[in-house]
Amino acid sequence: MTDNPAIKSYLAIAEKAISEALPAEGERPASLSDAMRYAVGTGGKRIRPLICIAASVAVGGRPEDAARPAAAIELLHNYTLVHDDLPAMDNDELRRGKPSVWAKFGEADAILAGDALQARAFAAAAMSPRSADAVVAALAEAAYGVVAGQVEDVAGSRDVPFVYAHKTADLFVAAAVMGGFAGGGSDDDIRRLRTFAFNLGMAFQYQDDILDGDSPYGEEKTAALAKEATDAALAALAGLPGDPAPLACIASGLLNRRV
Amino acid sequence: MTDNPAIKSYLAIAEKAISEALPAEGERPASLSDAMRYAVGTGGKRIRPLICIAASVAVGGRPEDAARPAAAIELLHNYTLVHDDLPAMDNDELRRGKPSVWAKFGEADAILAGDALQARAFAAAAMSPRSADAVVAALAEAAYGVVAGQVEDVAGSRDVPFVYAHKTADLFVAAAVMGGFAGGGSDDDIRRLRTFAFNLGMAFQYQDDILDGDSPYGEEKTAALAKEATDAALAALAGLPGDPAPLACIASGLLNRRV
Repeated sequence: MTDNPAIKSYLAIAEKAISEALPAEGERPASLSDAMRYAVGTGGKRIRPLICIAASVAVGGRPEDAARPAAAIELLHNYTLVHDDLPAMDNDELRRGKPSVWAKFGEADAILAGDALQARAFAAAAMSPRSADAVVAALAEAAYGVVAGQVEDVAGSRDVPFVYAHKTADLFVAAAVMGGFAGGGSDDDIRRLRTFAFNLGMAFQYQDDILDGDSPYGEEKTAALAKEATDAALAALAGLPGDPAPLACIASGLLNRRV
Repeated sequence: MTDNPAIKSYLAIAEKAISEALPAEGERPASLSDAMRYAVGTGGKRIRPLICIAASVAVGGRPEDAARPAAAIELLHNYTLVHDDLPAMDNDELRRGKPSVWAKFGEADAILAGDALQARAFAAAAMSPRSADAVVAALAEAAYGVVAGQVEDVAGSRDVPFVYAHKTADLFVAAAVMGGFAGGGSDDDIRRLRTFAFNLGMAFQYQDDILDGDSPYGEEKTAALAKEATDAALAALAGLPGDPAPLACIASGLLNRRV
């Protein structure tokens, strides 16, 4: 996926915007800026920022138009991981093979770093060059939805579509919709992007289950659901006024992954 | 203060907007909406929402213009209390004489309810009828600042002005600035409101120390600092184009409190 030169350039735009959205290294209080920068890391796949930037291009906008919203969705995503890892939640001491934020900085600073990442996510979203109010509203909807999904998940809900739609698809939808607004998309374009991203998010989650060997409906049915959602996602791209190829490429890269 | 009929009417506007900004009672997942509604409560003093609404009036706007920003600042304030009370932070089992959110709903749901309150705060801010991007940016600045102040406080910082400015004054500033933007204030008006609210917040915190019998500089010097900040706050109201009387009344009510 990142062999594609367009997508490689999007990744550079995203990394720069993410760094700018965070407090500067050593900015006071240093324990907070350090924990936030550690949480967001560098060199990640940045799937959601790439979707956001490619969505701007798909509606005819420039990649740069979506830089701030792309940073916003990545900060929001990472705050949810910081809080999910806490002892009172999933109690994970490792994240991506390194100590999780609470394991490294302590519980109090992990709670606060997560809180501060959510705040900075909204600061970045408000800097969208177009439709900042709609961009913020889309982010806020996902920010609430992802918590609702986590609450049901922690409570052991068996309503798989509810949990997947909120825990996973909501952030994909926000990424695409924010990019669409930032790129100047019409209401129709936003609707298409929403359908695309919802189905992509669901397909991603089903795939995850298959790769983890933990499919809620058995592997065969889960694979069929993933295929169905993938087809629905790609079909939704038809009719967008810009170049949907990078968005389709990201979707394929995501759904053909083997890890 | 709430004997004043104008301020009484602002309180009604604030309560309605706060209720509308929260998930409906019993909305799924019910444990989340219940915890959020419990955290925000009813019948509180709603100091920050009143400042927000009075700031709109002080720049010549209508009280209703600031309804959504007023709800936003109250949700944000309450999320910070929910997280501050957590066992990993202040470990408070009581808040306003009732079980704190984690004591009643458990730690995981308290973390998540706080997170969701922050998300809903930004959703409400984005619905400002004017300058939604500036309203969201002001809220985001305070949302980050209040965490920075808390980090220093938890770490036992002796830099009292830094901690007070961020832990307390930042939310007062956001309340006034958001109300000013929502009411259509000019850049000059916003600057005045910022000076007013910063000094009000500092005075409020010094007063708090005196009432708690725990003044960082000794009672006499703290009282002098409180007086100085109060004077600076009230002086900043001169020159605002609307009616600053309700804002002055809220400030006086706050600074003459005995509990």
